[in-house]
Amino acid sequence: MSEPPLQIIYRVQVPAGEIASRAEALLLEQTVELSRRVLPGASLEGLTVGQVVAIEPVAEGEFRVTVAQPRAATADDPAQLLNVLFGNSSLQPDVVLECVTVPDAQALLLGGPRFGLAGLRRLVGAEERAMTMTALKPMGLSVAKLASLCHAFATAGLDFVKDDHGLADHAFCPFAERVRACLEATLRAAQVTGRRTRYVPNLIGSPETVLRQARIARELGVEAVMISPMLVGLPVLHELVRRHLDVPVLAHPAFGGALRIQPRALLGQLFPLFGADAVIYPNVGGRFSYDRATCEAIARTLRRPHVPIAPALPVPAGGIQVDRVTEVLQFYGPETLLLIGGSLLEAPDEATLIQRSRRFVEAVQQYEYGD
Amino acid sequence: MSEPPLQIIYRVQVPAGEIASRAEALLLEQTVELSRRVLPGASLEGLTVGQVVAIEPVAEGEFRVTVAQPRAATADDPAQLLNVLFGNSSLQPDVVLECVTVPDAQALLLGGPRFGLAGLRRLVGAEERAMTMTALKPMGLSVAKLASLCHAFATAGLDFVKDDHGLADHAFCPFAERVRACLEATLRAAQVTGRRTRYVPNLIGSPETVLRQARIARELGVEAVMISPMLVGLPVLHELVRRHLDVPVLAHPAFGGALRIQPRALLGQLFPLFGADAVIYPNVGGRFSYDRATCEAIARTLRRPHVPIAPALPVPAGGIQVDRVTEVLQFYGPETLLLIGGSLLEAPDEATLIQRSRRFVEAVQQYEYGD
Repeated sequence: MSEPPLQIIYRVQVPAGEIASRAEALLLEQTVELSRRVLPGASLEGLTVGQVVAIEPVAEGEFRVTVAQPRAATADDPAQLLNVLFGNSSLQPDVVLECVTVPDAQALLLGGPRFGLAGLRRLVGAEERAMTMTALKPMGLSVAKLASLCHAFATAGLDFVKDDHGLADHAFCPFAERVRACLEATLRAAQVTGRRTRYVPNLIGSPETVLRQARIARELGVEAVMISPMLVGLPVLHELVRRHLDVPVLAHPAFGGALRIQPRALLGQLFPLFGADAVIYPNVGGRFSYDRATCEAIARTLRRPHVPIAPALPVPAGGIQVDRVTEVLQFYGPETLLLIGGSLLEAPDEATLIQRSRRFVEAVQQYEYGD
Repeated sequence: MSEPPLQIIYRVQVPAGEIASRAEALLLEQTVELSRRVLPGASLEGLTVGQVVAIEPVAEGEFRVTVAQPRAATADDPAQLLNVLFGNSSLQPDVVLECVTVPDAQALLLGGPRFGLAGLRRLVGAEERAMTMTALKPMGLSVAKLASLCHAFATAGLDFVKDDHGLADHAFCPFAERVRACLEATLRAAQVTGRRTRYVPNLIGSPETVLRQARIARELGVEAVMISPMLVGLPVLHELVRRHLDVPVLAHPAFGGALRIQPRALLGQLFPLFGADAVIYPNVGGRFSYDRATCEAIARTLRRPHVPIAPALPVPAGGIQVDRVTEVLQFYGPETLLLIGGSLLEAPDEATLIQRSRRFVEAVQQYEYGD
C-alpha cells in the first residue's frame, strides 16, 4: 500500500500468554472475519489484510494493541468506517477502542469541522477569550417561558444559549415556535445590550425530521445548532454537515454510553421496536461474550414482545458449528433463524462447502421439535 | 395521566444508603435535568415529572430501579425516546439500562416489525421448523467470487444467504453489481433445486446512501435486507421501515457496544471527524464520571486534531458552578466554550438569574490568560 493505513489503538485485557493470538483475532474480526488459516489469500482482490503493528503491556493482563487496517475496508463511507473501527469488537468485553488515526486523505474527505474553534470565535466576536453558554430547561416549560429565560440570559450577555438536549418537537413546545420565540428574545435583548447572543436549537429525530428542523432553523435565522450524534446516528451528523447545513454544529454526548444497555434491552426490545423483523446476536459459546441466560432472554424477548408489536425472529450467530445444530435447536426451538458463516466458509473447496451447507440445511429441516 | 407511562428498569450500583437519592437523580436526569427542589413546578405546562416506582436490592450495593416517565417527554419521536431512556445516564458508570416498556399506544405508533417471525417464515415457506442462514465473506472477494459462493450456498438449500455486515459499497465489490450477481446466483440455483434461497444484502452508509441502496435492492428484486442499527443510527432504521422499504429487515448488532470507546476517541476524535464544530462533554467534578485526565485529553484532542481537519471547540459542561469559572479557565484556557446550566437556572427569580449569568459572562470576559 502506498497510502498510510487506518491506524487503530485498542486496550485489551487478556493474560500475557494469549495477547498475540488475541490481537490477531481482533485485527481479523474487524474486516475479513475469518481466521488467516482459511483466508483464500489469492482470492482477495480488493483488500490486503491489515496487520498488528504493536503490542505494548500497560499493566498486568492489559495491553495496548495497535493495528493497521486498509482504508479500502471502509469504502470511504462514514458508517462503514465505524464498522471497521469497532463494529463486532464492540461486543467483546475485553476490548476498548482507545484511539483512531485515519489517513490524511480520508480525514479530508470526511471533512471534519467546517467552522470549528475559529469559526465559532468569529461568530460571537470572541477572538481571544473563552466563550460562554447556558441551556434552556427544564423540559416541560412552554415556549413563552423558554423564550423569557432566553431573553434573561441574552440580557446578561452570554455568547450562546442552547436548548437542553432533551427539548424535541414536543406538543407543549413545538420546534418552530420555540426557535422563532427564542431568536426574537435574543434580538430584543441585543437592542438593549448592543450585542447578539446566539440561540442554538436542538435538532433531534429521524433523518427527515432533523433535516426539516435544520431547514426551519435556517429560514428563521439560526446561526448554530446542536445535535446528539449517538442518538440520531453518527453518519446522520456527517450527511447533515456535508450536504444540508451551512452553520456550526455543537455535538452533545447523549447516548454516548449506549454499551451499558443490557443486550436483551438493546437487541431484544429496542431493535424490534424500531422495526427490525429479525435480530442477529452473538450466540452463547461463540467468540463473543453472551452467556446462556442472556441468549435465552434475547430470544424470548424478541418472540414475545411485551408491547403490542409483531414478534421478531431471533438469529443466533457467531461460532455455531454445523455439528452443533441439533444442540442449538434444542435450546432455541423452531422459532429461530440459525446463522452459520465461518464453519461453512472454512471448507477447503466448493464441494465440501456445499456438502457441509447441505448438512446444516438437513439438520434443521429434519430436526424433531419436542414440546 | 390517564395513559400508562413509559416504564424503564435500570441496574444501579451504589451503596444502600444512597440508593433513594441516586434513583431520584436518575429519574430527573432523563427529563427535566434539574433537581426537584428548584423545579418551577407550577410552570411545567407540558409535562408531569416522572416517578421512581420501585427500588429492589439484587445484590450487595446493587439495585433494580424502576422509573415511570411521562410519554410526553419522548415527543413520540424515535431519537427522543432513546434520549429519555438512556441519553445522559448512559454516560454515568454506575447505571445499566435493563428493560424498557413503552405504553401500548406508543409501541403501535412506533410500529415494530412489519413482517417479523411470521412474515419471514412465509417468505421462505418454513412454517414449522427453524430457518437457516449463512454469510458471504470475507470482505475483499470480488463480486464474481461472492456470487459463486452464494450459488454454492443456494445449491445446498439454505433459506437465507446474507452479506457479511462488513460488505459496503466497496470499489472492489460495488453494491449494485453484487446484489445483481448474487440474486442471479440464487435464481440459477433455484432452477436446479426447485426452491429459492433469499439473498439478503447489507445496507450501510449515511441516510441517503442507505435509501439509495434500498431502492436499488428493491428494483433488482431483493426480498429482505440487513442493516446495523447502531452503525447507521436507530432512528434511521425506523424511518427506513416506516417510509421507504416494503421488505423484511434483519438487524445486525455491530457497534452495539459503542460505550466501550474511550471518551477521548468518541468525543475527541470521532465527533469532530464526522463534522461537529464544538463538542459538549461532562466536565470533571460534575455529576458524570470523567476525571481530570480524561477531560484534558478530550479538550486537547479536539483542539489539535492529529489529522488534517479544523480544530473543534471543547465545551465542558455538567455541574460547573459560576463561582468556579476562574478555576475551570485555569484548566482549559481560552480555547473553550463554558456551558453552565443548572447553576444559573437554580436562581430563585429572574433578577438573580440575570445577575448570576452576568457574573459568569464577566468572569470569562475579564479572566487574564497566562501563557
